[in-house]
Amino acid sequence: MTETIDAYFDRLGQAARTAAQAIARAGTAQKNAALRAIADALDAARSDLTAANEHDLQAAHAAGLSPALIDRLTLSPKVIDAMIEGLEQIADLPDPVGEIRELRQRPSGIQVGRMRVPLGVVGIIYESRPNVTVDAAALCLKAGNAAILRGGKEAIHSNQAIARCVQQGLAAAQLPAMVVQVIERTERELVTRLVSSPQYVDVIVPRGGKGLIEAVAQAAKVPVIKHLDGNCHVYVHAAAKPEWVVPIVENAKTHRYGVCNAAETLLIDEAVAPRYLPEIGAMLARHGVEMRCCPKAWSLLHAAPQVPAELLKPATEADWATEYLAPILAIRVVTGLDDAIDHIARYSSHHTEAIITEDYSAAMRFLREVDSASVMVNASTRFADGFEYGLGAEIGISTDKFHARGPVGLEGLTSEKWIVLGHGTIRR
Amino acid sequence: MTETIDAYFDRLGQAARTAAQAIARAGTAQKNAALRAIADALDAARSDLTAANEHDLQAAHAAGLSPALIDRLTLSPKVIDAMIEGLEQIADLPDPVGEIRELRQRPSGIQVGRMRVPLGVVGIIYESRPNVTVDAAALCLKAGNAAILRGGKEAIHSNQAIARCVQQGLAAAQLPAMVVQVIERTERELVTRLVSSPQYVDVIVPRGGKGLIEAVAQAAKVPVIKHLDGNCHVYVHAAAKPEWVVPIVENAKTHRYGVCNAAETLLIDEAVAPRYLPEIGAMLARHGVEMRCCPKAWSLLHAAPQVPAELLKPATEADWATEYLAPILAIRVVTGLDDAIDHIARYSSHHTEAIITEDYSAAMRFLREVDSASVMVNASTRFADGFEYGLGAEIGISTDKFHARGPVGLEGLTSEKWIVLGHGTIRR
Repeated sequence: MTETIDAYFDRLGQAARTAAQAIARAGTAQKNAALRAIADALDAARSDLTAANEHDLQAAHAAGLSPALIDRLTLSPKVIDAMIEGLEQIADLPDPVGEIRELRQRPSGIQVGRMRVPLGVVGIIYESRPNVTVDAAALCLKAGNAAILRGGKEAIHSNQAIARCVQQGLAAAQLPAMVVQVIERTERELVTRLVSSPQYVDVIVPRGGKGLIEAVAQAAKVPVIKHLDGNCHVYVHAAAKPEWVVPIVENAKTHRYGVCNAAETLLIDEAVAPRYLPEIGAMLARHGVEMRCCPKAWSLLHAAPQVPAELLKPATEADWATEYLAPILAIRVVTGLDDAIDHIARYSSHHTEAIITEDYSAAMRFLREVDSASVMVNASTRFADGFEYGLGAEIGISTDKFHARGPVGLEGLTSEKWIVLGHGTIRR
Repeated sequence: MTETIDAYFDRLGQAARTAAQAIARAGTAQKNAALRAIADALDAARSDLTAANEHDLQAAHAAGLSPALIDRLTLSPKVIDAMIEGLEQIADLPDPVGEIRELRQRPSGIQVGRMRVPLGVVGIIYESRPNVTVDAAALCLKAGNAAILRGGKEAIHSNQAIARCVQQGLAAAQLPAMVVQVIERTERELVTRLVSSPQYVDVIVPRGGKGLIEAVAQAAKVPVIKHLDGNCHVYVHAAAKPEWVVPIVENAKTHRYGVCNAAETLLIDEAVAPRYLPEIGAMLARHGVEMRCCPKAWSLLHAAPQVPAELLKPATEADWATEYLAPILAIRVVTGLDDAIDHIARYSSHHTEAIITEDYSAAMRFLREVDSASVMVNASTRFADGFEYGLGAEIGISTDKFHARGPVGLEGLTSEKWIVLGHGTIRR
C-alpha cells in the first residue's frame, strides 16, 4: 500500500529536522570528508550513473523533449567530472559555521558578538538538471544545513542514482543519511508541501526558469531566495574613457547570450552618442546582434556605414523591460546621469548595472543611487557571479533585498546568532 | 465620496515607493536634521498631543479597555519626553547607509565589495501604543527607508497628531512628506493589503502580542521580521561557579517579569541540584515566585526550610513550553549538558538561553550547539536587548533566522548590494 502524501512528507520533514541538528554540530573535517567521499562514490558509480541517465534520456526522447532540455538532462562524462570537481572545490572552501565576529566589550561588563550558524533545513526545487542535485547538496552540507531536494521528474532515475552516491558519502563520514534527502516521488503536491511547511523547512531556493520561480514564490509560506529576471544595463556616460566603451559593451552583450548577467539594454549620453554609436553598432553587427533602438539611436545607427539596416528595429515600450537572453540589445539615448538612473529605476530587474565613466562624481552617484544587486563602474556586467566575486561557489543569484542579495554562496545559506560572554554578570 | 480601499492603498503604496527613492539618496546630515526637527515639532505640540490623546483615552474608557491597555495608550509628558529623547539618540547613531566593507582585489582585475543600502519600504503594524509611531518612523528614516505605519485603531487621534509632527519635521529638512505615512483609515482590510503587496512593501515588522504577529505572518506575502515567544532558559551546569548561580537566576527571573528576555525555565544538573536548589528556592520565595517543578526538583524544594509549600507545584508538559511573563518559573533537574541542550532544543522558542559554568568545554558546546537568537555564558538572559548589545535602538527582536536574528537595529532595516570597480575590465 502506498504511503499517503501527508505521511510521506511528514516523515521526510521530521527526518530533515533531526538531521539538521546533527549536521549543524558536525565539525569542518567531518563535513569535508563527506564531500570528498561523495566525490569518490560518484567516480566509482560512473557506469550506474550513465545507465540511470540513459533510462531518463530514453523517456525524454520518447516524450519529445526539446534538444535544449535533453542537453541539460544529459549526464555526460564531462558533467560527472564537473560534479566531482565542484565537490572538491566546496570541500576546500573555508567553513562559515562557528565564525565569530565583532566580539565587543560593553559597559555592563558583558562581551557581545555574533556567531555564524546554519539556517537549518534548505529546500531546493529545480528542473531536470541532475548535476544540480550534487551542487546544491554539497553547498547545503558545507553550510551545516540539511537539504530536501526536489528535481524535475524527467531526471528521476539520474537523481536517485546520484542520491545513492550522496548517501554513501555521508555514511562514509559517519553522518546521518537524512542530511540530504532527494524526493523520490513525483507528485506535484509535494512541491506545494515543501514551500508551505515552515515547521520542516527554513528556506527554499528555486533554481530554474522564471515560471518555476514565480510559481514557488506565489505558493510559499517559507522564505524564498529567488532570482527573477536579469535585465542588465550598461550606461555610457558623457565622460566615458573612449577606449573602454566598445570592449565593455561587447563583453557585456556578446560574451554569452543566455546568461542572467548579460547586458540587455545600452544607455548612452546624447553628448557622446554620435561619437560612439556607429562604432558600437559596427561591433554588434559583426556579432549579428539585433538592435532595438529609440528614435535618436535609430537615426545615428541608420546613418552608420557598417550597420546593416536589417539589424535595426525601433524599440517598443516592452523592449526596455525585456531580458532577451539572445543576440538582441535595446539601445536608448539619454540626456545624462539623472535620465539614466531614472530609466534603470523604472525598467531594471535590479540584477546588475554598469556605468562607463571617468567622472568621479558620476561614478559615486551611480554606485550609491542605482538600486540593484550588483552595481559596477568601468567593468562588464558579466562579472556578476559567485566565482568572480570570490565566493567559491553559488547556490543562485538573489534579486531580492531581504537576507541575501546578488550571488549567494555559503554565507547566504547561514545566519548569525548573538553570543554573550559574562562572568556572573547581571543587568542593573 | 469616500475613496475605495483599493484606490486608497494604491495611492499610499505608490507614494511610498517614490518617497523611498528620495530617502535612500538623502545624506546623513539631512536625515539627522529631519529627526531633530521631528523632536522639536513634538516638543512644540505637547498640548495638541495631549488633547488628541485625551480624545482616544475617553473612547477607551467608554469602551471599557483594560487598565494595561489604557496605560500603553497614554501619552503622558514622560512618554513624550522619551519619544523626543529617542529621536535624538537615533540622530546620534552612525548612518549605516553607504557603508562599504571588504572591497577586495580579484585576480580578474576588478575590486569587489559590499555597500549597505536601505531595504526600501517598511510596513510597521502595531497595537495602540502611540510612542511606537515615532520610534518606528525614526528608525526607518535613519536606515533610509520609507515607512507605512498602521497603529491600533484605539490610538488613531494620538497617531494622527504625532504624524503631523513627523510631517513638519520632514518638511523642515526638505524631505518628502510621504517618507512616513501613518494610515488614517481603520479598516482591517488595510492590514491585509499591507502584508500582501510586495509591489509596494519590502518588509513588515509587526510589533505587539503573539496573536497579532501570528496573524500577520499567516497572511503575509512579504517578508516579516517577527518576534514570537521568549521562552528563555537558564541552565546551571555541574561546574557552575557557586557565587554566580543565585545572582544570575535571580536577575534573569525577577528583574522584570513581563519582558521577553526573562527566564521562564531553570534547568539544573542533578549533581548540584541538592546544593543550589534550596538557596534558589529561598530566593524565589522572597520574590513570591511560584515554582513549577519536575519530581526531583519538587522533592528537593519541598524539603527546603525557606520554601513555602504553596509556592511549589508539579510541572505539566505544557509548563516547559510556556512563556509566563509572570512570577512563575518552571524548574527541571537534568542529567547533564546533553540533557539540557536536548530540553532546550525541544521546548525553547529560540530567543535566549544562558549556561552558568566554569567548564570551558561545556561553555563552548553550549555556545555552538544551542540554536537560539542569543546564547549566553555566565550572564543573565536580561541582556538580550538592542541597547545592551550596543545597537543604539531596536525595532524588535527577531526569533527567525532568515535575514535578521535577535535584536534588530538599523542594520536589520538595511541590506547590502555588491559593488564592482574596474578600469575597463572585461571577463575572459
